[in-house]
Amino acid sequence: MQKEAIYHRPKNEFAYAYNEKDLHIRLKTKKDDVEDVELLYGDPYEWDNETGWLFQAEKMIKTGSDDLFDYWFKEVSPPFRRLRYGFRLRSKNECLTYTERGFYEDSPADAGFYFCFPFLNEVDVFAPPEWVKDTVWYQIFPERFANGDKSLNPDGTLPWGSTSPTPTNFFGGDLVGIENHLDYLSQLGISGIYLTPIFKAHSNHKYDTIDYMEIDPQFGTKDTFKHFVKACHARGIRVMLDAVFNHSGYYFEPFQDVLKNGKASNYREWFHIHEFPITTIEEAAGDVRPNYDAFAFVPTMPKLNTEHPEVKEYLLNVAAYWIREFDIDGWRLDVANEIDHSFWREFRKVVKDIKPDAYILGEIWHDSMPWLLGDQFDAVMNYPVTNAIIDFAGKHSINSKAFIEQLTKLLHMYPRSVQEVAFNLLGSHDTPRILTLSANDEDLVKLQLLLQFSLPGTPCIYYGDEIGMTGGADPGCRECMVWDEEKQNQPLFKYVQQLIQLRTQSEAFGTRGDLTFVPTNLASPLLSYIKVTKNEQLLFVINAERESHEFELPDEFINLPTKELFSEQVMEPSAKIRIGPKQAIVLKKL
Amino acid sequence: MQKEAIYHRPKNEFAYAYNEKDLHIRLKTKKDDVEDVELLYGDPYEWDNETGWLFQAEKMIKTGSDDLFDYWFKEVSPPFRRLRYGFRLRSKNECLTYTERGFYEDSPADAGFYFCFPFLNEVDVFAPPEWVKDTVWYQIFPERFANGDKSLNPDGTLPWGSTSPTPTNFFGGDLVGIENHLDYLSQLGISGIYLTPIFKAHSNHKYDTIDYMEIDPQFGTKDTFKHFVKACHARGIRVMLDAVFNHSGYYFEPFQDVLKNGKASNYREWFHIHEFPITTIEEAAGDVRPNYDAFAFVPTMPKLNTEHPEVKEYLLNVAAYWIREFDIDGWRLDVANEIDHSFWREFRKVVKDIKPDAYILGEIWHDSMPWLLGDQFDAVMNYPVTNAIIDFAGKHSINSKAFIEQLTKLLHMYPRSVQEVAFNLLGSHDTPRILTLSANDEDLVKLQLLLQFSLPGTPCIYYGDEIGMTGGADPGCRECMVWDEEKQNQPLFKYVQQLIQLRTQSEAFGTRGDLTFVPTNLASPLLSYIKVTKNEQLLFVINAERESHEFELPDEFINLPTKELFSEQVMEPSAKIRIGPKQAIVLKKL
Repeated sequence: MQKEAIYHRPKNEFAYAYNEKDLHIRLKTKKDDVEDVELLYGDPYEWDNETGWLFQAEKMIKTGSDDLFDYWFKEVSPPFRRLRYGFRLRSKNECLTYTERGFYEDSPADAGFYFCFPFLNEVDVFAPPEWVKDTVWYQIFPERFANGDKSLNPDGTLPWGSTSPTPTNFFGGDLVGIENHLDYLSQLGISGIYLTPIFKAHSNHKYDTIDYMEIDPQFGTKDTFKHFVKACHARGIRVMLDAVFNHSGYYFEPFQDVLKNGKASNYREWFHIHEFPITTIEEAAGDVRPNYDAFAFVPTMPKLNTEHPEVKEYLLNVAAYWIREFDIDGWRLDVANEIDHSFWREFRKVVKDIKPDAYILGEIWHDSMPWLLGDQFDAVMNYPVTNAIIDFAGKHSINSKAFIEQLTKLLHMYPRSVQEVAFNLLGSHDTPRILTLSANDEDLVKLQLLLQFSLPGTPCIYYGDEIGMTGGADPGCRECMVWDEEKQNQPLFKYVQQLIQLRTQSEAFGTRGDLTFVPTNLASPLLSYIKVTKNEQLLFVINAERESHEFELPDEFINLPTKELFSEQVMEPSAKIRIGPKQAIVLKKL
Repeated sequence: MQKEAIYHRPKNEFAYAYNEKDLHIRLKTKKDDVEDVELLYGDPYEWDNETGWLFQAEKMIKTGSDDLFDYWFKEVSPPFRRLRYGFRLRSKNECLTYTERGFYEDSPADAGFYFCFPFLNEVDVFAPPEWVKDTVWYQIFPERFANGDKSLNPDGTLPWGSTSPTPTNFFGGDLVGIENHLDYLSQLGISGIYLTPIFKAHSNHKYDTIDYMEIDPQFGTKDTFKHFVKACHARGIRVMLDAVFNHSGYYFEPFQDVLKNGKASNYREWFHIHEFPITTIEEAAGDVRPNYDAFAFVPTMPKLNTEHPEVKEYLLNVAAYWIREFDIDGWRLDVANEIDHSFWREFRKVVKDIKPDAYILGEIWHDSMPWLLGDQFDAVMNYPVTNAIIDFAGKHSINSKAFIEQLTKLLHMYPRSVQEVAFNLLGSHDTPRILTLSANDEDLVKLQLLLQFSLPGTPCIYYGDEIGMTGGADPGCRECMVWDEEKQNQPLFKYVQQLIQLRTQSEAFGTRGDLTFVPTNLASPLLSYIKVTKNEQLLFVINAERESHEFELPDEFINLPTKELFSEQVMEPSAKIRIGPKQAIVLKKL
């Protein structure tokens, strides 16, 4: 047995409380090394004077494999909410018990040797808002969605869509523009809108805030926004705003005060100033780096000192204000990973005290476990899954086997409860558009959308992707929304509409379905997975190849009557099906 | 290369902020598999348009090996407090780069592939009180240390030391008794007293609190205690109390109220009651388990609902009160692992707001990383090290090689900053006494004390161990302190005294010294390690065997003039030394 490959540690994705009564226990072992694992478990305080600790043994199930590891799983519901546990592993020629203290041929009799989940305290359980599981998000970059009130246009506003976006040009998108198109969004079927920043700021993207307590006048007023939120809520659409708390803008009053008054400024501690006088924006326009902490090295985005009590109070008040006064439903946290954990813990308390089911979504592009332990965020932007989907079905840079391995790794990187509300996206204002990444192949975009909508998590559509907009990296991906129906890709729109409907109609289709990949064989380049709930069984088969392929149905579906969900066609029982090039089918067992 | 054995994950003991400017990065690889590791690191936002991310490469050092793994280490001080990093590993026939996304033959050019330590925020740094590093603790079980005021004796108090302790008998130890013996403790040289509970309670151990706001009348009054703390402080001795917040006692008023009023009690939510009426202590005296959550299944210790706002407020007020009014220096937290993390985070805030350098010590017997991330405890009772010391030098159940492997594993289980203030003990009121565990062999006890005092961490002596008291498991380990000097083991007392002096005189001796084990060869059963600071180099050689053994000095000490610290004897330069049976020497390089 490859002992060095065997890993478990409690209180992260390997052992966590799934709810107030069930613990999830996972283990990883070297791929194809261990034949069988039993979970040995019991109450820490149950023992027999002669035999020692009293435990039971139950088989763990293998939930998947990546390129290096097999993953094992078992759910237990300890009657006294306390657990000691270990693992009994069997390979061809060995049988070992794995505990916190190491490996033993015989299972130790002393409970103290075993792993410990000391107590399942409800308040520590990771518990994101339930509604998120049923939400389909739509991300809007307000400057580019719709110009509804020309009187608000900033100076030099260009005619809508008249030219390509640059880092500095303006097209006059606003809140009324969005509200005017709620019918369009309702027709599409989305149930949540994520707006990139709408507070008063200097740039077109508004990530350089001037005033966190004001709506940017280009977008409207507080009244416009209040009206907008109400209109959304009336349609069952939730609203999430972007909290840019890592840094302010250059024209944020406290920063201007520091620029003006230097060391004497009352706000000098609000930022991380290395020395005085501080670099001005004119100086920094050359190759001079700012002599204060900034987002990356961007002089117009001075980093806020979120450890300072006044800054904390100011920002927490901002967080509370927009929920309390405008009833927003969530906060997306910009550059969330560079702000202190301590700040986020207080942020969570403030937000959830006002609105217990508000959604807190962090922008983190890398492994985010330290932020997803129940005390900080409800979810993160799930870029690792984005990358895997695009690599497989957009760029063909990995095959279905590699995709399954990557996804299996990612699905075992966080607790299940985290996966269920992960924010799954194919792109955002920070990445090239999905159609562009897919070399303008609409069929490939559909396959990627299908993956996005059916993998664990909650999907978000970047405005315009549903009608086939294109664009490269920022600012290319920030084109004006196309409202001329003739220029909109209607079949793509209908496809997204159908995906949203399928998620609503079928419980197993979305994040509530239990996913199992169908093992690939070398003869088939197809990707297939089964999703089940108590009442439903779905089979997804995806052919990202440019040729059609035959697919052998897995045991669960072979020779049984099924219905194809997109076509609603009842299928004859069969052993094989043929999938056309760049096509997918979803079979529901009847 | 055994890829499955290679492990790193940020924000725990593998990557952490050691202070406000230095990050510690660790990696583990299969033992003897990888020859050389370089850390590839740089600012996340530094790149070159042609070559991609700009990083530097520096060799990591191997800091030890356990039975399965080699451990690697590197400290970096990122100028902008942000870090992306990966590992370049070389084995005999392979060279691979290990990143968050997996292994690559060529180092990826995209910073997004690498591990991320997004920002070193000072408030998140694990920062225990500095004074703890120089403290030698002394644990007192107040009922059994000294009877200083016979007028406080509870009914049925037995003459001091007249008989063996039972779970229920009383000998009348009190606070005045302890204060009367502060000369003794000062003479020994300790600098911190940890008192097991002193609040009003029913039992002799007082872990079943009746009133958290009162001193047990058997021990004295609030005035006695105030006087006691002042007397300790005047001698430079700090005082730590025991916070028993997981459960109350049966006679705690709120619990009595629930017993009396059942469902109608205002305190019913203060506990976890399964059903009414609740089991009485008389019923539970049989084999009936309490129908409420309790510590283990002990009916006299009903578990407190620390999630309930009133309970939280009550207990946090207790925590604040004894610091604010009596100036205590720390809290030891009983059954700390079974209380919610959320409670402990608030507890830390309350405690540190009043006394920023108070010490927070959790009672956790197992892997405690989730409580030692900077937001909860400063330290835990380091029983895993206790076990290793006793197994090696007390019971001879493991040899020096296995001891080194176990210690190496344990020293890499937590950040260095955690190790520096770990609470190292050879025993407590919960374990058999060290002399008894060592089959009454005083020489072996000395070796274990030497290990306890020189391994990373802060040592705690359990009252009476320094004069050779014996006793088995609770209640055997709770005998009355022996004050008859003729019955005290004076040489042992002097040895402990000397250990404490050595820790004071020599910086490298205690927790500030950098420890490296001297590789053992099969020919020698001796244990040896080097401890260094900028100005000092010490060599420890420990012979736990019953025969004398020759020891070849390591390169750093061979043929160089040294002084032996216990004997203060200057040693002739030599290549070898002979260590007598069950003896140890500590050489200081001159």
